[in-house]
Amino acid sequence: MKIFSDREPIVALASPWGESAIAVLRISGEGSHSLLERVFKGSKKPVNVPGHTLVRGTLCGAGTNQSIDDVLLAVYKSPASYTGEEAAEIFCHGSLAVIKAALELLTVNGFRPANPGEFTLRAFMNKKMDLTRAEAVNEIIRSRTDKARALALNRLNGSIETQINEIKDRVTTMVSALEVQLDYPEEETENDFDFIKEAGDAKQRIERLLSTYSAGRIIQEGISMVLAGRTNAGKSTLFNLLVKEDRAIVSDVHGTTRDYIEGAISVEGIPVRLFDTAGLRISEEPLEREGMKRTRNLISGASILIYIVDATQGLTTEDEEFMARYRDKVKIIIVYNKIDVHPEGCPENGVPVSALSGKGLDLLNKTIVMTAIGTSAPDASEAVIDSIRQKECLSNAGRGLDDFMEGIKGHMPLDVLAVCLKDTVDALGELTGEVTSEEILEKMFSKFCVGK
Amino acid sequence: MKIFSDREPIVALASPWGESAIAVLRISGEGSHSLLERVFKGSKKPVNVPGHTLVRGTLCGAGTNQSIDDVLLAVYKSPASYTGEEAAEIFCHGSLAVIKAALELLTVNGFRPANPGEFTLRAFMNKKMDLTRAEAVNEIIRSRTDKARALALNRLNGSIETQINEIKDRVTTMVSALEVQLDYPEEETENDFDFIKEAGDAKQRIERLLSTYSAGRIIQEGISMVLAGRTNAGKSTLFNLLVKEDRAIVSDVHGTTRDYIEGAISVEGIPVRLFDTAGLRISEEPLEREGMKRTRNLISGASILIYIVDATQGLTTEDEEFMARYRDKVKIIIVYNKIDVHPEGCPENGVPVSALSGKGLDLLNKTIVMTAIGTSAPDASEAVIDSIRQKECLSNAGRGLDDFMEGIKGHMPLDVLAVCLKDTVDALGELTGEVTSEEILEKMFSKFCVGK
Repeated sequence: MKIFSDREPIVALASPWGESAIAVLRISGEGSHSLLERVFKGSKKPVNVPGHTLVRGTLCGAGTNQSIDDVLLAVYKSPASYTGEEAAEIFCHGSLAVIKAALELLTVNGFRPANPGEFTLRAFMNKKMDLTRAEAVNEIIRSRTDKARALALNRLNGSIETQINEIKDRVTTMVSALEVQLDYPEEETENDFDFIKEAGDAKQRIERLLSTYSAGRIIQEGISMVLAGRTNAGKSTLFNLLVKEDRAIVSDVHGTTRDYIEGAISVEGIPVRLFDTAGLRISEEPLEREGMKRTRNLISGASILIYIVDATQGLTTEDEEFMARYRDKVKIIIVYNKIDVHPEGCPENGVPVSALSGKGLDLLNKTIVMTAIGTSAPDASEAVIDSIRQKECLSNAGRGLDDFMEGIKGHMPLDVLAVCLKDTVDALGELTGEVTSEEILEKMFSKFCVGK
Repeated sequence: MKIFSDREPIVALASPWGESAIAVLRISGEGSHSLLERVFKGSKKPVNVPGHTLVRGTLCGAGTNQSIDDVLLAVYKSPASYTGEEAAEIFCHGSLAVIKAALELLTVNGFRPANPGEFTLRAFMNKKMDLTRAEAVNEIIRSRTDKARALALNRLNGSIETQINEIKDRVTTMVSALEVQLDYPEEETENDFDFIKEAGDAKQRIERLLSTYSAGRIIQEGISMVLAGRTNAGKSTLFNLLVKEDRAIVSDVHGTTRDYIEGAISVEGIPVRLFDTAGLRISEEPLEREGMKRTRNLISGASILIYIVDATQGLTTEDEEFMARYRDKVKIIIVYNKIDVHPEGCPENGVPVSALSGKGLDLLNKTIVMTAIGTSAPDASEAVIDSIRQKECLSNAGRGLDDFMEGIKGHMPLDVLAVCLKDTVDALGELTGEVTSEEILEKMFSKFCVGK
């Protein structure tokens, strides 16, 4: 791969592959406007169209004059484009036949099919955005709740980059101060530079960002949650309540039918796949045993098990036995249902709920969030990281500061101390992509969708 | 419904509902640019952006300043837009969360969710296109093969409209000539106007268009075709050959698994859903009988049954019995397979094929086309109709001409003859939408996708 130097014209479908009113084909790369002349016949030649302007025309084969579709062409000039390069978008009819024919026509005429994330990679290479923003592009596309979208948009607008650059500036200032002492060891240090305090402050800011990781990750990726309990405890009523109250965004494309019910909901911004299982019953009947086996598999793969107890009956031995079996495998929230009928029926360790009236739902939601991320959900305006790459860079940056502070206490030589701080600067530079390797870029952008 | 007068701002997602790089929200209607000011913050106000120009900005709630996404806004001025009205497109990240939040924001701020086909309906109402072109918009989106796409594009570019207008002009000239005779009955007719010849020519052109309907319909809608035959006749080899040779465009969204194999192929431009069935065998085993029942259901719903006979064994009584059962229900093509081994094994009424070597595939494809549409496939540049509405209008127009010619022969009064011709003119006007009813429009556009 020659991703650092490659500027050849690329093309990709940027809208989903499906029938719709409009489909978008995205184009970028040096010389792409003059290449487009071969396939686009409009009132103006693409090279003569001003930037950020749309022209009508026909997409048709060079020479053959076989028209493929009537289209609109959006022209972007370098560097005022998403990638920073000469770029264009073709808006055609959202027909599978048109998309297929158009992509074929363009690839035959000099446009290479783009790799996943290649447009954003080029935007990064051309310094249109740092790596935290580039990652945010993908995160915003994959976001499944409003909170995830809002947090990703913050990152896209530089919430992480700004903080990282501020921290890096301060650490760089420390390095400079150290170097002055290294270069002029004779001069008495003015002592107006409190290295320990500065390093501690920087470390604290890094820790604060790091602490958002778990919440950020969970809000972006979501969790799965299983409802279980004895028959007639009210599982399905609670399931319906949860699903109806706050249905998350679900694609209507589904796989096969399953013998448990699944719903996608958003619990205070956390995307939750919720599973309602068959009621528990000790049974020797093979079909029921098969159902129980599936329930067990579901629970093993889940983050949270909501175990529903009928408050009018209290916790039975059967309930306790069931939960004991899973206590080590999954976090359990015990819900005491039917408190509308039996308000006193919920002990301290339970969440009192009336699935019928909706009473207690608020507390249940808060308990789910606390159980999932160990804290309340971050505010939509916070800078929150959700990328394991960013987390690792931050950890490395923090480690450099730790080493530095240890070194000062141990009266290490100044040049050794400077190396610790430079490690921190490098780690932060890696986070924003100032310093980076082709390998990291490849790994990161391969997770993107094609056309982005 | 008040579709004739409604110009209020509407919005719809114009790209498919799914994760992708870019999603397109489409907007049209009087005052939509100034409405957009409430939700779009960019370097320029939408009303001040020149037509066919793109501006970057942020989509965010009026007052709240809660940003939803960084977007590009395309502005179109009236009448130079698709609908002819003030219009716009918002290009946002193709995230389900963004799409949902953006649509909510826009509908809260004065944009009504568009009905299916409402943008194209407005384009028609504003005389941007006639009804045959409007129908072509939908047909191009739904097209599943290159041929279907090309024929729809012809219609979009006016291939039907032009022909209809030419015929209508000629019939209108006849009406005028008749009226001259009506108004000045004393004057000797100059007899330089051959009504019979003119009407005959017009009728012939209408007949020619009408004759394309069956082919057009089949190329647009496709057919389903079932492979059947005794075990080891080579069904699966032929299935693979057909599917591999010319795989049609298939969405990768699929339903449930079935116990027969299904493939989507294109046979000379006809989209064909091809089904491979379990081999036939008389069996009392319940599971096999169930399989046979499904095969029967498949065949009952199919247009063509390809029955495969092993040429080395010839037609057996079992084969004959099976085909006899379906002869009245479906068109049958008998394929004699394995002619590579037994070249003489195919009688006159069969198609000789070697599924292994691919020999005979060309003849098989031609036979399929002939069987499906009764003629060879139309050329991509032909004017071909595929809409039942257009077919009905054409039939009515033809009937008017027939009545007229009968009337001349029967020496009917001139005013009666004029009425026949006017019926033809009206039917043709209805076809292009010059004369039309709200009911017809509603019915037609309700088949469109939202956003178009």
